[in-house]
Amino acid sequence: MPLVVQKYGGSSLADADSIKRVARRIVDTRKAGNQVCVVVSAMGDTTDELLDLADAVSPAPPERELDMLLTAGERMSMALVSMAIANLGDSARSFTGSQAGVITDDVHGKARIIDVTPGRITEALGAGHIVIVAGFQGVSQNTKEITTLGRGGSDTTAVALAAALNADVCEIYTDVDGIFTADPRIVPTARKVDRIANEEMQEMAASGAKVLMLRCVEYARRFNLPIHVRSSFSHREGTWVYQPQGEDDDVEAPIIAGVAHDRSEAKITVVGVDDSPGQAASIFKAIAEGGINIDMIVQNVSAVSTGKTDVSFTLPKTDGQRGVQVLQAIKDQLGFESLQYDDQIGKLSLVGSGMRSNPGVSATLFQALADNGINIEMISTSEIRVSVVTKDDQLDDAVRAVHTAFGLDSSDGEAVVYGGTGR
Amino acid sequence: MPLVVQKYGGSSLADADSIKRVARRIVDTRKAGNQVCVVVSAMGDTTDELLDLADAVSPAPPERELDMLLTAGERMSMALVSMAIANLGDSARSFTGSQAGVITDDVHGKARIIDVTPGRITEALGAGHIVIVAGFQGVSQNTKEITTLGRGGSDTTAVALAAALNADVCEIYTDVDGIFTADPRIVPTARKVDRIANEEMQEMAASGAKVLMLRCVEYARRFNLPIHVRSSFSHREGTWVYQPQGEDDDVEAPIIAGVAHDRSEAKITVVGVDDSPGQAASIFKAIAEGGINIDMIVQNVSAVSTGKTDVSFTLPKTDGQRGVQVLQAIKDQLGFESLQYDDQIGKLSLVGSGMRSNPGVSATLFQALADNGINIEMISTSEIRVSVVTKDDQLDDAVRAVHTAFGLDSSDGEAVVYGGTGR
Repeated sequence: MPLVVQKYGGSSLADADSIKRVARRIVDTRKAGNQVCVVVSAMGDTTDELLDLADAVSPAPPERELDMLLTAGERMSMALVSMAIANLGDSARSFTGSQAGVITDDVHGKARIIDVTPGRITEALGAGHIVIVAGFQGVSQNTKEITTLGRGGSDTTAVALAAALNADVCEIYTDVDGIFTADPRIVPTARKVDRIANEEMQEMAASGAKVLMLRCVEYARRFNLPIHVRSSFSHREGTWVYQPQGEDDDVEAPIIAGVAHDRSEAKITVVGVDDSPGQAASIFKAIAEGGINIDMIVQNVSAVSTGKTDVSFTLPKTDGQRGVQVLQAIKDQLGFESLQYDDQIGKLSLVGSGMRSNPGVSATLFQALADNGINIEMISTSEIRVSVVTKDDQLDDAVRAVHTAFGLDSSDGEAVVYGGTGR
Repeated sequence: MPLVVQKYGGSSLADADSIKRVARRIVDTRKAGNQVCVVVSAMGDTTDELLDLADAVSPAPPERELDMLLTAGERMSMALVSMAIANLGDSARSFTGSQAGVITDDVHGKARIIDVTPGRITEALGAGHIVIVAGFQGVSQNTKEITTLGRGGSDTTAVALAAALNADVCEIYTDVDGIFTADPRIVPTARKVDRIANEEMQEMAASGAKVLMLRCVEYARRFNLPIHVRSSFSHREGTWVYQPQGEDDDVEAPIIAGVAHDRSEAKITVVGVDDSPGQAASIFKAIAEGGINIDMIVQNVSAVSTGKTDVSFTLPKTDGQRGVQVLQAIKDQLGFESLQYDDQIGKLSLVGSGMRSNPGVSATLFQALADNGINIEMISTSEIRVSVVTKDDQLDDAVRAVHTAFGLDSSDGEAVVYGGTGR
């Protein structure tokens, strides 16, 4: 019997009626002849409400206790979904992350899954039950403490369970129809894509596409697991995130998968750095020691007259001020002239595995931006991605221009709803 | 270092401010030189809200899933109390019932504690932490499923943990000042008692006094553990529930501990039963097989002329209709004449270990009722208790009359607030 793992996010579980609707879909999947293991997020606003409560008793709650508190959210939704399934005459068993064997490291708030030992899940599935598992949570290997997985945690739980159970597919249910060629709120002519290679999805997620979280895609890619991203509000096919098998599998794929954008970053430029070995290392060692993740780095060749150069990099806006402080603290040691900080930027990324065999993609991209009067502040590329940083207020125009230039606009321009997932 | 176990009910944890107040009290207890282990109920109305959610998705939710849902309530409150303690600069660790080693049988919804293995609690206390434990919940020995303990469950968790940890005292915090000689909402002159023997408390609880649940008192008595019932809203001493040591310990205790009352029962009279061996056995075998707990039983001698008798018994109102159905189903087999059902009754119980050595208590009780024109429908006695059933609308008068007749009225008649505990 095929085994299907499904994941439902908070927006699909907003209230009792939503839960009943999801239960009906789960029971239908079971009746169609599948074993079904379901991963659920917390209902609608539950997590925010719990965070508000925590904030009301303590401005800086201990992370262990915060994890204990937040995991109550999925516990509630998994029990309610199980009850709703029982009410339809089928039989469901709910399991916490710990009971489901989701073993993590011991970093509270953003634990990483290091093993999945789903003995109780396998047993319950074998006994004919539908299984409901709390997403976003696990138990730490060494300390046996309850942990949470951080952003995208429930998607990751679903993929990790699907891999451990050797499932046939992992269905990620959300409030949009699938993966789009661009955010339809910015590009009304964006199209849902039927399939996307997981390496492309990985670049899209890393570049700001919010429907699937990066770590979940990485996990699925590592275990060669197909993901079907689809809407819990319709029965339409969504987007399949697949693993190409051999070189020929991609032949008919479009050159470009989509245009992602990201407004979450800021830019720091270190002006007047000596162009001598070790300067960049010193800068980014200091940043890393501050616990700050950086994204793009650009360094130009130095002006011959001065022997000085400028180094620019992007980092999360939320870490922006700290990044500046870290560098100011070592200004004398590094001997740079000044720092420039800009959080009014946006990043556009063009992603497609066809870039490998199609030279000229970058040129087309830059021309499209130039034709629309959009200035490029930074450029960064990978094998299947080109990213540019623009002024924040030019980003939407940039995304539309590039989407059109690469022939991604749909002919009918149907209105679609596009949203982000929670966790 | 002395070890104190404290239990806080939902009314003491109604909102963020209440939680901060409770945290302050816990930290003060720790600073006074005690190890502190705290058991918490769910916040205020949380349990009712969760039950409403369950009801909205299923009219008859599976008990396993209901337990999974409800245990989220204590999980939230224990994490929040821990955070509030951390915010006061002290260190707290929260543990679920399962983590705290509360091992139960596998009856969902009303599990009984069969063992407590508090290894993680002892370890955390030894490391200098304050420990917060979720009340009302455990894990089943055989099936490793999450269970709840039913009514009075959090009090029982506290007493069981106190026994297993060999604590010096178990403090039960509630929203009243302690145990009263009668319900002050009915008897404004009722007094708080400073101490009460646990056998008396047991009879009071079994007779309808709601501040402490019967099973918690039974547990404390079995393990010879002192309980201090007190208000979380003041710093006054409450009521000590103690274990008399030897016969002399009770010498100075008052003859009467208090007057309890109970409106939760109904009465069934089986009219015209053959006065032959085995008739009563047949009646109560059928009731027991229906899963119905009965309280008082009264059978009069039969009229010589007919050889028939009447058998009356009381049972929870909630089981009343089912009790009638069970007996109607075996009417032909038993050969009784008819059934009378009355749910407009109340029960008054006078409790005191001094009754043993003071004959005449019953006579004084019956005289007080007679003087006030109150008719007695049933009488039942134990070694330290006399209970009478009256009409529901005469019960309050009866309680006041008896309270006065036994000299229990306070001289100052101070206004007190008296309420029930949740779970």
